[in-house]
Amino acid sequence: MKIAMLGLGKMGGNMATRLIRNGINVVGFDMSSEMIAKLEREESLIPASSVEDAVNQLEGQKIIWMMLPAGEVTEKQIDDLIPMLNPGDIIVDGGNSNYKHSVKIGAMLKEHNIGFMDCGTSGGVWGLDNGYCLMVGADNDVAKAVEPVLRALAPNQQDGWLHVGPIGSGHYTKMIHNGIEYGMMESFAEGLELLKGKTEFDIDLAKVTELWRHGSVVRSWLLDLTAESLKGDQNLDNIEPYVADSGEGRWTVVESVDLGIPAPVLTLALQVRFRSQEKQKGYGYKLLSIMRNAFGGHLLRKKG
Amino acid sequence: MKIAMLGLGKMGGNMATRLIRNGINVVGFDMSSEMIAKLEREESLIPASSVEDAVNQLEGQKIIWMMLPAGEVTEKQIDDLIPMLNPGDIIVDGGNSNYKHSVKIGAMLKEHNIGFMDCGTSGGVWGLDNGYCLMVGADNDVAKAVEPVLRALAPNQQDGWLHVGPIGSGHYTKMIHNGIEYGMMESFAEGLELLKGKTEFDIDLAKVTELWRHGSVVRSWLLDLTAESLKGDQNLDNIEPYVADSGEGRWTVVESVDLGIPAPVLTLALQVRFRSQEKQKGYGYKLLSIMRNAFGGHLLRKKG
Amino acid sequence: MKIAMLGLGKMGGNMATRLIRNGINVVGFDMSSEMIAKLEREESLIPASSVEDAVNQLEGQKIIWMMLPAGEVTEKQIDDLIPMLNPGDIIVDGGNSNYKHSVKIGAMLKEHNIGFMDCGTSGGVWGLDNGYCLMVGADNDVAKAVEPVLRALAPNQQDGWLHVGPIGSGHYTKMIHNGIEYGMMESFAEGLELLKGKTEFDIDLAKVTELWRHGSVVRSWLLDLTAESLKGDQNLDNIEPYVADSGEGRWTVVESVDLGIPAPVLTLALQVRFRSQEKQKGYGYKLLSIMRNAFGGHLLRKKG
Amino acid sequence: MKIAMLGLGKMGGNMATRLIRNGINVVGFDMSSEMIAKLEREESLIPASSVEDAVNQLEGQKIIWMMLPAGEVTEKQIDDLIPMLNPGDIIVDGGNSNYKHSVKIGAMLKEHNIGFMDCGTSGGVWGLDNGYCLMVGADNDVAKAVEPVLRALAPNQQDGWLHVGPIGSGHYTKMIHNGIEYGMMESFAEGLELLKGKTEFDIDLAKVTELWRHGSVVRSWLLDLTAESLKGDQNLDNIEPYVADSGEGRWTVVESVDLGIPAPVLTLALQVRFRSQEKQKGYGYKLLSIMRNAFGGHLLRKKG
Repeated sequence: MKIAMLGLGKMGGNMATRLIRNGINVVGFDMSSEMIAKLEREESLIPASSVEDAVNQLEGQKIIWMMLPAGEVTEKQIDDLIPMLNPGDIIVDGGNSNYKHSVKIGAMLKEHNIGFMDCGTSGGVWGLDNGYCLMVGADNDVAKAVEPVLRALAPNQQDGWLHVGPIGSGHYTKMIHNGIEYGMMESFAEGLELLKGKTEFDIDLAKVTELWRHGSVVRSWLLDLTAESLKGDQNLDNIEPYVADSGEGRWTVVESVDLGIPAPVLTLALQVRFRSQEKQKGYGYKLLSIMRNAFGGHLLRKKG
Repeated sequence: MKIAMLGLGKMGGNMATRLIRNGINVVGFDMSSEMIAKLEREESLIPASSVEDAVNQLEGQKIIWMMLPAGEVTEKQIDDLIPMLNPGDIIVDGGNSNYKHSVKIGAMLKEHNIGFMDCGTSGGVWGLDNGYCLMVGADNDVAKAVEPVLRALAPNQQDGWLHVGPIGSGHYTKMIHNGIEYGMMESFAEGLELLKGKTEFDIDLAKVTELWRHGSVVRSWLLDLTAESLKGDQNLDNIEPYVADSGEGRWTVVESVDLGIPAPVLTLALQVRFRSQEKQKGYGYKLLSIMRNAFGGHLLRKKG
Repeated sequence: MKIAMLGLGKMGGNMATRLIRNGINVVGFDMSSEMIAKLEREESLIPASSVEDAVNQLEGQKIIWMMLPAGEVTEKQIDDLIPMLNPGDIIVDGGNSNYKHSVKIGAMLKEHNIGFMDCGTSGGVWGLDNGYCLMVGADNDVAKAVEPVLRALAPNQQDGWLHVGPIGSGHYTKMIHNGIEYGMMESFAEGLELLKGKTEFDIDLAKVTELWRHGSVVRSWLLDLTAESLKGDQNLDNIEPYVADSGEGRWTVVESVDLGIPAPVLTLALQVRFRSQEKQKGYGYKLLSIMRNAFGGHLLRKKG
Repeated sequence: MKIAMLGLGKMGGNMATRLIRNGINVVGFDMSSEMIAKLEREESLIPASSVEDAVNQLEGQKIIWMMLPAGEVTEKQIDDLIPMLNPGDIIVDGGNSNYKHSVKIGAMLKEHNIGFMDCGTSGGVWGLDNGYCLMVGADNDVAKAVEPVLRALAPNQQDGWLHVGPIGSGHYTKMIHNGIEYGMMESFAEGLELLKGKTEFDIDLAKVTELWRHGSVVRSWLLDLTAESLKGDQNLDNIEPYVADSGEGRWTVVESVDLGIPAPVLTLALQVRFRSQEKQKGYGYKLLSIMRNAFGGHLLRKKG
């Protein structure tokens, strides 16, 4: 079997590698010719000089797997692909696209008789060795056609991939997955902050997180990683107190609003990240401070 | 009528003044003899050289009104007062004590046949002119005896004071009042932050808060004060983004936990203040950051 | 001065009335001819038999004020109006439209040389007597032309209306206003629930809310209304525990997500309403319950 | 080695069993003689006819491990034990006691020269087979003496037990562990509710939770259990939407308040449970509803 992989970055490159190691031939293209060369040299990737070249190197029912930045880049790539493909060919969007967008893309491609799969992909940098968790939205015939690729990417042929439902349901499920991830991360962060804040007990966070990995109710992969990360300097003096966020955490909150279903913890986990990003430099705090001053005559902390 | 006022600070001093201006004689004592002298000179306060002296200058059923810092100072003062008083005399705690404490104090004083009133007092620095809002917990006879004082402190003789219920209920009601105050302040702060964050509209917050004072659903005294405060520099460049909190906001959250009744907005309003105080310098954010890095290979923002 | 008012429901009807009483002639149209007849009879409204008829009864620079349900109805009405109007005429959307929509409408109408104003309107059923709070987004010449109407609707000619900024900023400001309103309402609801939950104090909520109206920090129009509402049966036994929500509360949360500015209290106030609506009949609670059972062997509460 | 186990319920009984199977002799007592008899018959527990009898069957440095309900029962038992023990003997509280209490107990027992260990125990009904995760607060000599017991209870001799720090730190760490557990559970519940609420995708929650167990970022023991629990009827029609809570979730929130360190997600996860318990039958919702009605003339939903 031979497919094309567009985008050979942190995710796409590793996925191409895992596919090749599991017996799938991969024609690869990336804006960086260096990435292509490296994978050709080390993993027998079949190099392509352009997207068109990648497509042309496939035969029969062509499967184009995209691992590109969500949004404009992905959309543009799909538009460009349409004239290169034949009816029955398949585009897989394995990136972090908004599911609403995937629903639209799928409908548009259907008019061109091109199959579409939205594949939510979890596993991060560990996926190469551990396998990826794949949440798939697609029509049945498309899911069937891509199944060997999904099996090769998943942790084992059986587990770790699922045809969740119609087009859009793959990215929807991945979005919710990431929302849950935010909530879990924040749960750990808050708990550990309370442990550290109890200075009279002088608790060793590296040891406690390692401890919890064995037999406790909170044992989890995130805990495994956290325990590992705390083994060096647990004071984290050199880390900026800044947490980025991605589309999926935000979309989960918007979905909660759209559905009218409360998701307070997932929402707050996102808002904590906003707070860390301090786009307004504490303006809200300052407002509270001047209000207190106004009614209570409380002293304002002035700068300088 | 003549009562003693212990504590002549920002609150006690103004309350003594309002009482005197409304025809109640006030014997006043404070650790600062300067405060006593000032009120004697400007408002005809009857000075006392000590707590004992203040008590001794009263006749008949003595009423001792305390405006002292909650906690140890208030407790100590009550212990000291007991031997100076006669059965039937009354101690009023007008400070921000924990209602649980007031219930205990009331029971203890009952054993000495000394009456007790817990009086939650709202109004801040504006109370002198506007009158105070007084939430009273006491036995009926005690409430009856202190009523003329309450009338003199309230905005008018009729409104702004209430015998809420038994001992403890006054401070309980004040505690909840402050919890609500936290929620309202945070509501305004968040809304205004969103107005300011919409930079393309370049909205003048001073003008909008002034606008809302007229006919809108959110018109309120807090809005009046906020509008006034924003009239100068609305960028608040010189204000530290730090918001203190007091016992009552915290006790409200603990009460919610004790009763098993959710109060998510009041709780979050408190936690936002904690966040501003940054006791752990963003340790929680750093934890989130290293977790992201661990599973996703996301770049850490390192300092320096 | 003569303008047209389209939509004579709870809001539009009262606004037409207030305008007429303040010397503005109003040509009115509504789907309900009964409403038109009533206002004609009682308030000298000039009746129109259709939107076109309403427009045709105006002279010079025509001002069409719409008080229609946000969304499709409003959009459709604007589309229909375009061919009836001349360059320089003005459409005012006084309803609760999404500000993003208003920005688009404004740009579209500009292509037809038709002026547009988005006017956020607060004041509810009390606006007729008290006046409305009007938050206006518009170009300067449009704002100038409509000013006499704004003055007549506002609590007094001076206060209660503001040209906030460009098109969209009016509905944006109204959206944030409603977000704040949600937070304030929830703050009161939580505080009062904690008062009621302290059964040993048997606190009279009607009396306490009335008390707080005088001199307290939380005094506000919402408190005035709440105190009034609790004067009858404060147990609310006959009220369904269901709270509807409107577009603006939801859009405020989405805006917080879009801007990356945290608004946790406004968000939670919305989510509490979602919870009351119980779209999934406690499914989340059930999930928690089966998890507890799974690890702890805790008894499940089964139905029946 | 021989120790006494007081309390042979769900936790204590399984722990006694695990100890016996790992070569520790256990003298057991419980209020239910049936439990004692069962464990004597099936697991060679050494039966005791009373607490005193249990203590008397030990030799040398006696170790009494208590698995009793936190609070009064545990306190009373400790008081009763004191006269039965000799200097150097050790009491272990393996239950879910408040760490503040454990600190006090430890100090009190020190006056009697009796050693104390607070041991937070996680693992639930699965601990018998998987081993328990043990978080230990104790002086060094006490920890040393009890170590063989800890090793036998833990998943393996090396991992799953930790001498965290001084007396109190064991229960403190367990408290935080449970706080995190609440946050994780709520994260999953919210995410799954959003999956289920997206009815057009008709997502199979049993399959998705099973999927996520393989390679995803949220894989965890809680997910394992959830996936298993959903394999039958995922509609949960027969489950009451009621979630109990325990002391530790509540104490975590109080600790956050005491330390002034925000823990919004852990707090909300608790409050969601309060909400499910509906102590006030939606009174807060009703208040919101009458407020809306008061200012907006919105229709109230009345019962019946």
